[in-house]
Amino acid sequence: MKKYVDINCDMGESFGAYTIGMDAEAIAHISSANIACGFHAGDPMVLDRTVALAAAKGVGVGAHPGYPDLLGFGRRNLTCSAREVRNYIIYQVGAVQAFCAAHGVALQHVKPHGALYNMAAEDADLARTIAEAVAAVDRRLLLVALAGQNAPRVREMAAAAGLRVLFEAFPDRAYTAQGTLVSRRKPGAVIEEPSTVAKRALMMAAEGRVVAEDGTVLEMAVDTLCVHGDNPAAVALARTIRQTLTDNGVAVAPMAEIARLRDPA
Amino acid sequence: MKKYVDINCDMGESFGAYTIGMDAEAIAHISSANIACGFHAGDPMVLDRTVALAAAKGVGVGAHPGYPDLLGFGRRNLTCSAREVRNYIIYQVGAVQAFCAAHGVALQHVKPHGALYNMAAEDADLARTIAEAVAAVDRRLLLVALAGQNAPRVREMAAAAGLRVLFEAFPDRAYTAQGTLVSRRKPGAVIEEPSTVAKRALMMAAEGRVVAEDGTVLEMAVDTLCVHGDNPAAVALARTIRQTLTDNGVAVAPMAEIARLRDPA
Amino acid sequence: MKKYVDINCDMGESFGAYTIGMDAEAIAHISSANIACGFHAGDPMVLDRTVALAAAKGVGVGAHPGYPDLLGFGRRNLTCSAREVRNYIIYQVGAVQAFCAAHGVALQHVKPHGALYNMAAEDADLARTIAEAVAAVDRRLLLVALAGQNAPRVREMAAAAGLRVLFEAFPDRAYTAQGTLVSRRKPGAVIEEPSTVAKRALMMAAEGRVVAEDGTVLEMAVDTLCVHGDNPAAVALARTIRQTLTDNGVAVAPMAEIARLRDPA
Amino acid sequence: MKKYVDINCDMGESFGAYTIGMDAEAIAHISSANIACGFHAGDPMVLDRTVALAAAKGVGVGAHPGYPDLLGFGRRNLTCSAREVRNYIIYQVGAVQAFCAAHGVALQHVKPHGALYNMAAEDADLARTIAEAVAAVDRRLLLVALAGQNAPRVREMAAAAGLRVLFEAFPDRAYTAQGTLVSRRKPGAVIEEPSTVAKRALMMAAEGRVVAEDGTVLEMAVDTLCVHGDNPAAVALARTIRQTLTDNGVAVAPMAEIARLRDPA
Repeated sequence: MKKYVDINCDMGESFGAYTIGMDAEAIAHISSANIACGFHAGDPMVLDRTVALAAAKGVGVGAHPGYPDLLGFGRRNLTCSAREVRNYIIYQVGAVQAFCAAHGVALQHVKPHGALYNMAAEDADLARTIAEAVAAVDRRLLLVALAGQNAPRVREMAAAAGLRVLFEAFPDRAYTAQGTLVSRRKPGAVIEEPSTVAKRALMMAAEGRVVAEDGTVLEMAVDTLCVHGDNPAAVALARTIRQTLTDNGVAVAPMAEIARLRDPA
Repeated sequence: MKKYVDINCDMGESFGAYTIGMDAEAIAHISSANIACGFHAGDPMVLDRTVALAAAKGVGVGAHPGYPDLLGFGRRNLTCSAREVRNYIIYQVGAVQAFCAAHGVALQHVKPHGALYNMAAEDADLARTIAEAVAAVDRRLLLVALAGQNAPRVREMAAAAGLRVLFEAFPDRAYTAQGTLVSRRKPGAVIEEPSTVAKRALMMAAEGRVVAEDGTVLEMAVDTLCVHGDNPAAVALARTIRQTLTDNGVAVAPMAEIARLRDPA
Repeated sequence: MKKYVDINCDMGESFGAYTIGMDAEAIAHISSANIACGFHAGDPMVLDRTVALAAAKGVGVGAHPGYPDLLGFGRRNLTCSAREVRNYIIYQVGAVQAFCAAHGVALQHVKPHGALYNMAAEDADLARTIAEAVAAVDRRLLLVALAGQNAPRVREMAAAAGLRVLFEAFPDRAYTAQGTLVSRRKPGAVIEEPSTVAKRALMMAAEGRVVAEDGTVLEMAVDTLCVHGDNPAAVALARTIRQTLTDNGVAVAPMAEIARLRDPA
Repeated sequence: MKKYVDINCDMGESFGAYTIGMDAEAIAHISSANIACGFHAGDPMVLDRTVALAAAKGVGVGAHPGYPDLLGFGRRNLTCSAREVRNYIIYQVGAVQAFCAAHGVALQHVKPHGALYNMAAEDADLARTIAEAVAAVDRRLLLVALAGQNAPRVREMAAAAGLRVLFEAFPDRAYTAQGTLVSRRKPGAVIEEPSTVAKRALMMAAEGRVVAEDGTVLEMAVDTLCVHGDNPAAVALARTIRQTLTDNGVAVAPMAEIARLRDPA
């Protein structure tokens, strides 16, 4: 049976006169874009440009909501109430949806950013709050969450909110034997050698497996692979990953198509 | 034939720990709410509360976008490009739409705020940009513009963008013989005596006329009357206006209904 | 021997069109003002007004720096690095100093706000970072910290940075038997009966003692009492506290004078 | 008699995760740095780094205050009251002063940024407001203004506020026959050929003259030359300018020294 996977990348992280990311180059190698919504990065001009770019390239558009912390790029924990998190997400998703409407595409998915993503991976209440916020806006939106041991629980919780989840893996990140990401503060947390990363991506997509840092082979159902577009090396790596996947019979398709294939309903 | 008019009020202007407006009291006397979107006032928590309040009371929900100037409450001119204005509006309208979705109501209208509203009343290019931005999100949205001499031109321009416009008058503001608002900086610009304001509101709604500061009687097609909810006196005035209208056979109805009556299409 | 105490109050928390606090009324009853610096509250216009008010009334001017979180009024924990905290404080203290220069007064003290204050009361590293930041700007500035069991440690740490500390107590807050504040989330945490609060203030200032929630009498060296100016009742309470102190022979004086009396050096 | 000139460059314009400018490279070729203060660019971390860098290299530290418009990088006109402009400047200057104190240097100068600078060059009231704001903080601060026809008037106005002014020219910008800058929107407004720019810089510094776009030779007293550090070409140009100046007997020195030489008082 043919294999499919999505490739996603954070995009639209520029702000005003400031540029982050080589979106115009990276877009060629991905199938879904997580677009910053103006709270931790991004602004209305950048949103407009980035949604237009994704629409023009047939790349699925996602909202990438974060904490209201431009100064910290959304990477710092902020102790918000559940209601605050919910409303911050609704607001940001709506902003991206309006640009989707202006460019004639439908919003495809929501992937939390930075500290919000990381905290949700460890805090079931926060994860539920996020799922309910997305569902409150539109139940057709796909939620992106970390693949691994918590996946069944997250899937169930999202289902309770009426949402489908796609699970994400990071080919350039080391995994613990428990299937969690090795902290970036530890040596070896980020894998840089391109062919190694590409092979890990292929193993994740084609076999649903990843080799942990201690050599353990973990089963891990993966719907989407996260790549980066920050600099020329990252863009080259994204191209290598995609090439390796397609050369080995794994088709790359946006999350919406992956979701349809997984759950033809 | 029965007369109809909408009563609108700016709402949701609180921010974080800061409160502006007696929304919970004023809501009882209006039929449409212009809700701040987070750029010049408002935040996701306030938006959530205010859309919920309007939905519960059957009051039409509008987006009230402004310049990104919380420090100046959107009252200061900012020299933006047309593209910036367009994208600021799309962003803000989308944010409110998402809260409408979460509360099961449809966004009804868009009314620009403060400097954006005032500049658009004098700058046809800016007015066109605003209309096109709203149309880019959803052509079913109603645009609110200043009633008076520019109304035919604005109606035409909005029609070109595919939008319908509702025209707004201010019962508590003095008008020049040319049908424009007397600048707030001039003495007599704001009329405070409640029964005078209520009579002006009635004349606007029932007869489509207003008496200018020099006594001239101006014809002015009016779809919606703007009232305020900033303090107890303003709320009392809003109640008086509504009572005077209904006592004199003018029915108060949300903009969506006014638009249907005007253009039964 | 005559007793002296300072009375401090948070001020300058308004922002743009938004008002918090009855500064003009409360100022009559205090001897030192903690002025918000624009990160969690306050803005340059408010700073100018508030420093001018304090200067005119002979009230000591303090900087009240907080986390960069206007949306959360500085009450939410934000996981910052020590360097971030240091630089946020230096920036905010400098901003207030410039308004002091413009109004011909010297900045007297620094009191961290909200989450920054609360976190520092429990985290010695954060407290040290704050002290070093203040000392980096000017060693003559007085640092305000929570009176109680940690006072000796804080005093020592501040001394290492070259700073003097004044210790603060809250007459309207319940204390645990360990001398810490009872969490606001618990019933009874805030004492509202004016004469009770005034008596507690007097006991703190005149005897250096406080009765904990379980009846234990705690020794607590107190240099300054925190009062509030949020509403008419709070302002009235501040007046009552001051009256009770002076009626019972405790003189109210700004922190700078308290520090001179404590350490005549 | 030996000639002296300052070379200034905008610095510290990065923000959070965003980088603008090659400060570490450009610093080698200048004698004074105009450091963004957090309103249109810059943040406390960047300020700390940039003041430290300037202090380490013996480069004069200046505050570069702008409008509160990070989204527009301070390049958009904002209709502020005189009091708002004054207080925005006091606030920003104070923030930079505190980092100067922390790094053991004195703040040298203030140069308004972007729209604030451009509007002040055409609006005498705004220019006076700026001068008075700077003087309110510290009369020893040097104010930087555009060299050219308005210089005598600006000098007089600043003197009335108790301030000295240094006049700035732009070697890479075309001048009109009236001695004003040719608008960036016109072709030829920016001169890119390095040796031409360097020759213009030398003529400005050594002869106090500039050739206008129509060939007219204008007299123009110049104290400081503005260079850029945005990209490798700009940094190379800054180096070429400095080399050309020193090769031709013009010494490069910080504004403080230039001011002493001009007015040995």
